[in-house]
Amino acid sequence: MKKFEEKTIRTEKIYDGKVVKLQVDEVTLPDGKTAKRELIKHPGAVAIIPITKDKKIIFVEQYRKPLEKSLIEIPAGKLEQGEKPEVTAVRELEEETGYTTNQLKFVTSFYTSPGFADELMHMYLTDQLQPLTKKVAGDEDEFVELIELTLEEAKQYVKEQRIHDAKTNYAILYLEMLEMM
Amino acid sequence: MKKFEEKTIRTEKIYDGKVVKLQVDEVTLPDGKTAKRELIKHPGAVAIIPITKDKKIIFVEQYRKPLEKSLIEIPAGKLEQGEKPEVTAVRELEEETGYTTNQLKFVTSFYTSPGFADELMHMYLTDQLQPLTKKVAGDEDEFVELIELTLEEAKQYVKEQRIHDAKTNYAILYLEMLEMM
Repeated sequence: MKKFEEKTIRTEKIYDGKVVKLQVDEVTLPDGKTAKRELIKHPGAVAIIPITKDKKIIFVEQYRKPLEKSLIEIPAGKLEQGEKPEVTAVRELEEETGYTTNQLKFVTSFYTSPGFADELMHMYLTDQLQPLTKKVAGDEDEFVELIELTLEEAKQYVKEQRIHDAKTNYAILYLEMLEMM
Repeated sequence: MKKFEEKTIRTEKIYDGKVVKLQVDEVTLPDGKTAKRELIKHPGAVAIIPITKDKKIIFVEQYRKPLEKSLIEIPAGKLEQGEKPEVTAVRELEEETGYTTNQLKFVTSFYTSPGFADELMHMYLTDQLQPLTKKVAGDEDEFVELIELTLEEAKQYVKEQRIHDAKTNYAILYLEMLEMM
């Protein structure tokens, strides 16, 4: 859908980083006027809802520099170039939790911040976890701690804002709905 | 919570825009090594789920330059400096839909992309809509079209990926859950 399309007149590339790129586009609006759009380019990401045999959800706690605090989130990570989301999902699951799976259920996908970024996040669920016999090395600059919570405990963490991000809030609401069906 | 805190050694300010700021922080990791973090600073945002008397949800369709396509989303907008989220929510509702309300129910709040941005989004619901007698001017560079959908129709739009962003997917899941209670 291209309704109200904003055609690019000029692109100014501001930054090309390890995770994000920033550019400012000058665009023509539907009424012929011009405007500037600040755009973040992101490689896309996956998130996984891992459920253990005793129906606990595995979360990871990690420091989030943009927020200057640590959050408890479902495992997630960026797509590597050319990588299929399912492959990223299993890789991140292995690196962050020490479990693997051969059974991923697709839950949903969404743009996290379509107003200023193109990050598309793909979410999967697995309740078929096998422990890895050998630890898989993750990103060397990533420090995470595993936390297993029941759905009720997770909902309490949302209230306390220790769980406080879009993908994890969505995952908890999704599981709550599944429980009701 | 400051677990695994990453202390800032140096901040390089890259860009200071109308919507976002970009900086790159050099940080000390918990193991004493250093790493770089690319951080987007964002003023924060609100989203509103407006429900009409006949139980339709009001969406807005608009072009999202980062994605180069138009999306159908619940009304949303950025916080102005010092503005309370409830005030922003009513303002955006008025500007984008032509309705107002004096009754907002808080739904949830979440960081949209905590890995690289500090955008915090606050979500509200209202089923108490009053039509404005006078049109309120919105952002002059924003072109939106209103679309009213039943929950079932909205779920179909999610499947077709015409609805495809975190806040709107969350809102639809939330309404679906409410229907089941």
